[in-house]
Amino acid sequence: MTTSYDIGLCGLKVMGQNLVLNMADHGYSVAVWNRTTSTMQDFVASEGHGRAIAGCETLGELVGKLASPRIVMLMVEAGHPVDAVIDQLVPLLSPGDIIMDGGNSYFKDTERRTRALEAQGLWFIGTGVSGGEEGARHGPSIMPGGSAKAWPIVRPILQAISAKVGPQHDIPCCDWVGPRGAGHYVKMVHNGIEYGDMQLICEAYAMLKHAAGLSNDQLYDVFAEWNRGELQSYLIEITRDIFSVRDPLSDAYLVDQILDRAGAKGTGKWMSQDALDLGMPSTLVTTAVYARSLSALKDARVEASQRLSGAEHSPAERRKLVGEPEDFVAKVRQALYASKIVSYAQGFVQLQAAAREYDWPLDYGLCARLWRGGCIIRAQFLERIMEAFAAQSDLENLLLHRYFLEAVRTADAAWREVLVVATRLGIPVPAFSTALAYYDAYRSAVLPANLLQAQRDYFGAHQYERLDRPGKFHTDWLSLRRSPPDQ
Amino acid sequence: MTTSYDIGLCGLKVMGQNLVLNMADHGYSVAVWNRTTSTMQDFVASEGHGRAIAGCETLGELVGKLASPRIVMLMVEAGHPVDAVIDQLVPLLSPGDIIMDGGNSYFKDTERRTRALEAQGLWFIGTGVSGGEEGARHGPSIMPGGSAKAWPIVRPILQAISAKVGPQHDIPCCDWVGPRGAGHYVKMVHNGIEYGDMQLICEAYAMLKHAAGLSNDQLYDVFAEWNRGELQSYLIEITRDIFSVRDPLSDAYLVDQILDRAGAKGTGKWMSQDALDLGMPSTLVTTAVYARSLSALKDARVEASQRLSGAEHSPAERRKLVGEPEDFVAKVRQALYASKIVSYAQGFVQLQAAAREYDWPLDYGLCARLWRGGCIIRAQFLERIMEAFAAQSDLENLLLHRYFLEAVRTADAAWREVLVVATRLGIPVPAFSTALAYYDAYRSAVLPANLLQAQRDYFGAHQYERLDRPGKFHTDWLSLRRSPPDQ
Repeated sequence: MTTSYDIGLCGLKVMGQNLVLNMADHGYSVAVWNRTTSTMQDFVASEGHGRAIAGCETLGELVGKLASPRIVMLMVEAGHPVDAVIDQLVPLLSPGDIIMDGGNSYFKDTERRTRALEAQGLWFIGTGVSGGEEGARHGPSIMPGGSAKAWPIVRPILQAISAKVGPQHDIPCCDWVGPRGAGHYVKMVHNGIEYGDMQLICEAYAMLKHAAGLSNDQLYDVFAEWNRGELQSYLIEITRDIFSVRDPLSDAYLVDQILDRAGAKGTGKWMSQDALDLGMPSTLVTTAVYARSLSALKDARVEASQRLSGAEHSPAERRKLVGEPEDFVAKVRQALYASKIVSYAQGFVQLQAAAREYDWPLDYGLCARLWRGGCIIRAQFLERIMEAFAAQSDLENLLLHRYFLEAVRTADAAWREVLVVATRLGIPVPAFSTALAYYDAYRSAVLPANLLQAQRDYFGAHQYERLDRPGKFHTDWLSLRRSPPDQ
Repeated sequence: MTTSYDIGLCGLKVMGQNLVLNMADHGYSVAVWNRTTSTMQDFVASEGHGRAIAGCETLGELVGKLASPRIVMLMVEAGHPVDAVIDQLVPLLSPGDIIMDGGNSYFKDTERRTRALEAQGLWFIGTGVSGGEEGARHGPSIMPGGSAKAWPIVRPILQAISAKVGPQHDIPCCDWVGPRGAGHYVKMVHNGIEYGDMQLICEAYAMLKHAAGLSNDQLYDVFAEWNRGELQSYLIEITRDIFSVRDPLSDAYLVDQILDRAGAKGTGKWMSQDALDLGMPSTLVTTAVYARSLSALKDARVEASQRLSGAEHSPAERRKLVGEPEDFVAKVRQALYASKIVSYAQGFVQLQAAAREYDWPLDYGLCARLWRGGCIIRAQFLERIMEAFAAQSDLENLLLHRYFLEAVRTADAAWREVLVVATRLGIPVPAFSTALAYYDAYRSAVLPANLLQAQRDYFGAHQYERLDRPGKFHTDWLSLRRSPPDQ
């Protein structure tokens, strides 16, 4: 009995605890360990009580309780703590045992750890787990990658605890993503897309509130309606809910009492930095990261707001610019949908570039399926993406798929109109505008980069290519230019 | 005589060769070495002939020719080649000798090299050198940082060869920047600002050409005029020139024969990635980097242009939207100037954040002075920045200085109008629009990030701050929300 536990879990913060309870609900026995022993003891004595959960004071005790091949899942802080626990585990394990990291680890760390542990005869899995506390407890989205030989061993338990989608609720939002860091990369892109979605919703909120003058009650109704259409998603749903919540400390709406200074944990930053390394224009996630960092400069903004004027209008002028509130709301909805499509298109383009760069054979339709339930960006919309990749597995850009192409075409005029209004009213909408700029640039057969290449060749002899023949060319611009006019 | 050379220079690509000739012009004797010996021999026999330039076949020979303390400048490719040459040089040098890296090295490499060489009793300087081939030959901008004790020794030669500004042309665009990687960081920010300037000029070009219908001759006149006003700068000047150059291979204007696929060397990417690490919203440089990467997807764009329609207008509608071309040109000029101010404001904010993070006591007015001449972003405009930091050395944001505040206020209406026209016509202007979004967000006392914090607390228990009292708060949103409507 003492060596028959199905899985060990290290790290009992709330995500770890909830995963353990989720596993126990599905009939798995779990040995648990935490660096601070009292946390483990409290958990085993309270939520863990009466379940097949064994508290362990040492990693040696935990390993000793596991059936072979052993599965040890880590839910510890990303970075050094993961390496520290791995270093302690390795001498306790035997060839064929499996270490699984369920934290938000940086994908290059997961690449390195997979190679290092495989060289020692162990298997390693780095898996994204999304869905917050609720997801971990009742069914998260799970994105595992690493040692493929370990997948059949961990598959039953991971799929059992994951979210399920489909008409029969039997399609698990958990499947094998790819080698080494692929799982954590897909999770990172999930989080980056989440950044974009949240920023777009915030900008829509700003326009609905400041341009159309909607109250929180009206905002509730708008998001409730949007959640019944093509925008249906967990984030739209909780946004709706938020507008109904009263402040426990006053009688106002709670959302109006919250300081407008956004925090971030770093995955959006990582996705942006890797997009830059890959040379892929993932402008939505980066704009969202920058918007959070600008929001954090609250004191500077308050001071600047008193000194920098612009875009001032009388109430009558504003009303004229915005038009009928109902019409404006409908336009914002279309603009939001079009911008969201661009954001997801960029995310999948980055996944494709990463698959080439890091040598992962990714299945993009599968990624969309893993995100279909359990995770923060879960949405009906992802069905359309699954369909698009099912129809064409190497689809270069979602914008070129018929469904999205039509959706964006339909939204085109409203999208532009909303940006015109925000521009005139001085409402910052960086995510909406970067989405439109990407769309307009992506559909431009000719961009002004010819001038940029001329500049680079002029001052730096960087050479340019030509439209009419192959090869690289350099011109001595200075000697060919017209004599400068008198300055 | 054989041990009296003033300086050694390693790496004889065009930048290295031109720096050697520049040094020789100013009376300095230079020992030169190149990994491929024939390159060195060719140089010494041709451009180097008849000057105090000694070709050396080995690094040992080069070191043996130098007066003490020895100064060895590297002009080799950034990255591993710099470390390789340093490793070869160290055993040949004596305490107090100086290695100086004049390439585009990554600032964290320069931090590491300074510490490592100082630990061995040597001095290290990492210096930005900007101005392209012409600058290197006749006076670049030079931004040295590293071992401060080495500065008095290299100062005469570096200031002699640098560009000069001021009414008497006696103020060198070369001065000590700060410890370790500070010089290379300032050069990186210079390059990032250059990315922003170039992208803004390209977008202005696109609008003048596609919205106002200007010919290359007319564009020449516009940029010639702009170069006489507050936009006066090297990049505006060469842009003017470019519109006058005929294709040597046809009778057309050369700029129209150049493929619109922009290349990049990486400093803009580095600046963006570090802005993300610092949590500072340097949106202009990142937008410019992404615009280059999107331009590089030429085949995809050509295909997409045939399938994605939008923003289509009859010639008459276009004329009505744009208005009188002359008025539109004047508005683009104002929008360009306002956007450029935002770009420089972001660059200096990033410098300030880097100074705090990496512990460099930077002088921002000095940075502006170093960029005033010799380098690619040289411009009269930098005088205004020098004045702003002279008036207030800890100025938090250039936008808050009276001169720039007034300039942006004056441009406000034109800036918005230009964006409205580009949005309606479907001309992608990501840099103009990100500049305005930054401006509008920076002057917003309240941003919609309160909703974002509510979302993060709802799904991830990330906690939020309140407007009315200190502390961190978590709310159980699910239990407080209004009962959801029927879906």
